[in-house]
Amino acid sequence: MAIKNPSIQKLITKYREISQLGKISAILNWDLNVNLPSKAAQSRAEQNAYLATLITEKWHDKEFRNLVEKIQQEKNLTPEEQAIVRNIVHATKFYYKVPKEIIVKRERITSMAFPIWSQAREENDFKKFLPHLQEIFALNKEIAGYLTYKTNPYDALLDQFEPELTAADCQTLFDGLKKEIVPLIKKITTSKHYSDHVPFVNSTQHYLQEDQRKIIDYVVHKMGFDFTSGRIDISPHPFTIGLSPQDIRLTTHYNNKDFRESFTATMHEAGHGLYEQRINPKYAYTPLEGGVSLGIHESLSRFWENMIGKNPLFLATITPLFQTIYNQQLGQINEQTLIKAFNIVKPSLIRIHADEVSYSLHIILRFEMENELMNNKLAVKDAPDAWREKSKKLFGIAPATDKEGVLQDVHWTYGAIGYFPSYAMGNIYGAQFLNKMEQDIDFDGTLTKGNLKPIKDWLDKHIHTHGSLYYPKELLMKVTGEKIDHTHFIKYLTKKYTKIYEL
Amino acid sequence: MAIKNPSIQKLITKYREISQLGKISAILNWDLNVNLPSKAAQSRAEQNAYLATLITEKWHDKEFRNLVEKIQQEKNLTPEEQAIVRNIVHATKFYYKVPKEIIVKRERITSMAFPIWSQAREENDFKKFLPHLQEIFALNKEIAGYLTYKTNPYDALLDQFEPELTAADCQTLFDGLKKEIVPLIKKITTSKHYSDHVPFVNSTQHYLQEDQRKIIDYVVHKMGFDFTSGRIDISPHPFTIGLSPQDIRLTTHYNNKDFRESFTATMHEAGHGLYEQRINPKYAYTPLEGGVSLGIHESLSRFWENMIGKNPLFLATITPLFQTIYNQQLGQINEQTLIKAFNIVKPSLIRIHADEVSYSLHIILRFEMENELMNNKLAVKDAPDAWREKSKKLFGIAPATDKEGVLQDVHWTYGAIGYFPSYAMGNIYGAQFLNKMEQDIDFDGTLTKGNLKPIKDWLDKHIHTHGSLYYPKELLMKVTGEKIDHTHFIKYLTKKYTKIYEL
Repeated sequence: MAIKNPSIQKLITKYREISQLGKISAILNWDLNVNLPSKAAQSRAEQNAYLATLITEKWHDKEFRNLVEKIQQEKNLTPEEQAIVRNIVHATKFYYKVPKEIIVKRERITSMAFPIWSQAREENDFKKFLPHLQEIFALNKEIAGYLTYKTNPYDALLDQFEPELTAADCQTLFDGLKKEIVPLIKKITTSKHYSDHVPFVNSTQHYLQEDQRKIIDYVVHKMGFDFTSGRIDISPHPFTIGLSPQDIRLTTHYNNKDFRESFTATMHEAGHGLYEQRINPKYAYTPLEGGVSLGIHESLSRFWENMIGKNPLFLATITPLFQTIYNQQLGQINEQTLIKAFNIVKPSLIRIHADEVSYSLHIILRFEMENELMNNKLAVKDAPDAWREKSKKLFGIAPATDKEGVLQDVHWTYGAIGYFPSYAMGNIYGAQFLNKMEQDIDFDGTLTKGNLKPIKDWLDKHIHTHGSLYYPKELLMKVTGEKIDHTHFIKYLTKKYTKIYEL
Repeated sequence: MAIKNPSIQKLITKYREISQLGKISAILNWDLNVNLPSKAAQSRAEQNAYLATLITEKWHDKEFRNLVEKIQQEKNLTPEEQAIVRNIVHATKFYYKVPKEIIVKRERITSMAFPIWSQAREENDFKKFLPHLQEIFALNKEIAGYLTYKTNPYDALLDQFEPELTAADCQTLFDGLKKEIVPLIKKITTSKHYSDHVPFVNSTQHYLQEDQRKIIDYVVHKMGFDFTSGRIDISPHPFTIGLSPQDIRLTTHYNNKDFRESFTATMHEAGHGLYEQRINPKYAYTPLEGGVSLGIHESLSRFWENMIGKNPLFLATITPLFQTIYNQQLGQINEQTLIKAFNIVKPSLIRIHADEVSYSLHIILRFEMENELMNNKLAVKDAPDAWREKSKKLFGIAPATDKEGVLQDVHWTYGAIGYFPSYAMGNIYGAQFLNKMEQDIDFDGTLTKGNLKPIKDWLDKHIHTHGSLYYPKELLMKVTGEKIDHTHFIKYLTKKYTKIYEL
């Protein structure tokens, strides 16, 4: 990358240390989730905290702060230089605007909240968690104030996870989704071709981890993931993390009763991994490194998980492999049964088990909750009731317990308010990318041949390579010529499920 | 630990960061050896180099240096405080006395030497490696000068690996060993009960990794290694590393043709691991943390590997387990066959494959070489010939190629001159500890019952717990009431092998 501006050059040199420390921290976190002996939890937490301190020191380094000030005054910058300035200003917003004591307070509140939430969820006792959740929302309102916003404090938080995304954007998009998805689910689940029975998942069947791994390796390799620059390991909750640009690691989770779980979860993570592996190497260790936002990341991971992994054409090509490896368990089961089994739509209470169609509704519920809570239209103590009401409206069912309701997710416990919407944004962006991809390449044709290369190449060229050069809205415009538009996702769902269930 | 001296208190607080960075570095190194994707080698090397820079900065921090000066003037220190001063002075010797440009030069020379050595060994071409080895020895002479020494520059290097050990010590001890071991080997190998045939190792037998792992888990658990504060993984060369006091990791290597390898290698590493796990927790993150020296570490690892793992009494108790797990492969093989198979003595050219009796001779050869090279009694270019001559004298055989001779070890490539003797010191110390242990507990009795707990408890009390409180010579005196004395090791070998081979 040809950086000519001397201040930006200097800044990049200093930024490299921040980036390096972040990657070292990623090594510790990967190991924490994959390998850590139980008694080492405390010592690893201290190691992580120590690295966090070093990173914070680097952001607050006087010379670095001066450079951050200086680069904002520079003129005649190249597009890459402009993006660097934009990303640095965005990244430093939290560090420079939020007072240190607030950051320390957040650390304290959230680390205290986690074990309480864990226990409260276990015991289905929201009251136990309530004071902590109140503290968390109160603190986030305070943080939003420091981050500044125009009219909605929630905007300040959304922007931290998905740059430039506003609550008003979400409201429009999510209302649009809701209006279409709710009746679509009804149509699917009342179709005469619908069934939620999976003949190959039952108490007598067992799917060996090593067999599941064979299929995963095959598919992830086919996706173009480079195993000489990455790995797949096991952790309770699958995730993807970059230990260096040449060391992108995915994890998966094996359910020995149901091979679908590791298959889709790994394709999801490999979608994240492929993005990180295929970013222009000249952006490595600079403010243009890494995927640009959670939403764009999710657009890719959910694209591979749902639009490829659960695509009937692709599943048809991979059925012989399933049949060979799970020969004993699958018996006479044909590709149509497999396709339906991978595409069962069923309103449910738990987000992480949701199907592709109803998933966004889970996010919409959380978005509405967060938006109301941040704007004092809902009190934290009333959150369980609000959750039940919204659930009833969206899914037609309400959780009988808070464990299956307001206590189900860990995100708030970590203080992450404004994170959830990025998942649904992923669905929306993903469908927009798919729509464009279908114009550019013979998508169905290549899937029918089981050839994923043209798809990966398209993503490389249009999305992956750019790293954090373009913000989500700009990237979308550049790639598709459109603003954010939820209708492609609706069209995609309608077309796909109309065909599967002959609606 | 009750530290009353305020300067030492301050120093310890600052030292904690050095210790923490060291452990973070250990995480990276563990992962490097166990998990690293091939293309990530360069990025990991940079991460390690960056951490090394941070650590060096901490050692050179002005306030820290002032404290190091100050604590050396303090009076009326407790034994623990005195040991802290001693260890800090020892650790800073290299950092403060050797000029930075020499350290950088060493880094450059050794990182260039490694791939050349690798290739030279592969191609059996010493000449290719010669200029690099010459540089390495020249540089080490220079370093010895900065570290200062009385008469022998080699002493300065030895002291870095094994505090207070001198070439004169080694000469006396090793001459003593040589005089006895050479004829002992002859006696064993010419005994009518001797055979180097192992009936259960041949081209038709295969030992599953998971079976080997079962035995390893059983034995390492029995040794008292705490799996909630540690792990066992796989790497090409087994090693042990502490990622925190609660996270001690061993690696092993599986040979699917010979289960003895992983059994003894893992007991060896678990000996290191047990030491690190059972150091007084109050020493954690202070200059008293960790095992005191390479030699003491080796005394424990080699104790478990040889004096327990290959002990006929212990092998007898574990034979039923071998027979159960390797039922098909072992067939009618009884405990006597197993005992002999684990205790075959055979002079060989390669150190890492050496048996317990001839192992020390490999070290003596290297000690003599290093001592002569450091004192200009041997030129680097003549090293291959010298190696052959010494090999002939010690083993009765000379390597036909330098690959099996002077090029076999990686240590010199890393610039580590003076490291080898600690292996043989481990044998000597270990036998002294064993001799004392046999006076304190019913060693044979507890081994006959397959009960390792009294042995672990003895080591905990007399050695493990002290961490780096006592230097090797002091520890030895404290535990055994003796100076370093090689005769116990000779007595141990003679007694053991006289019995096995009815000499």
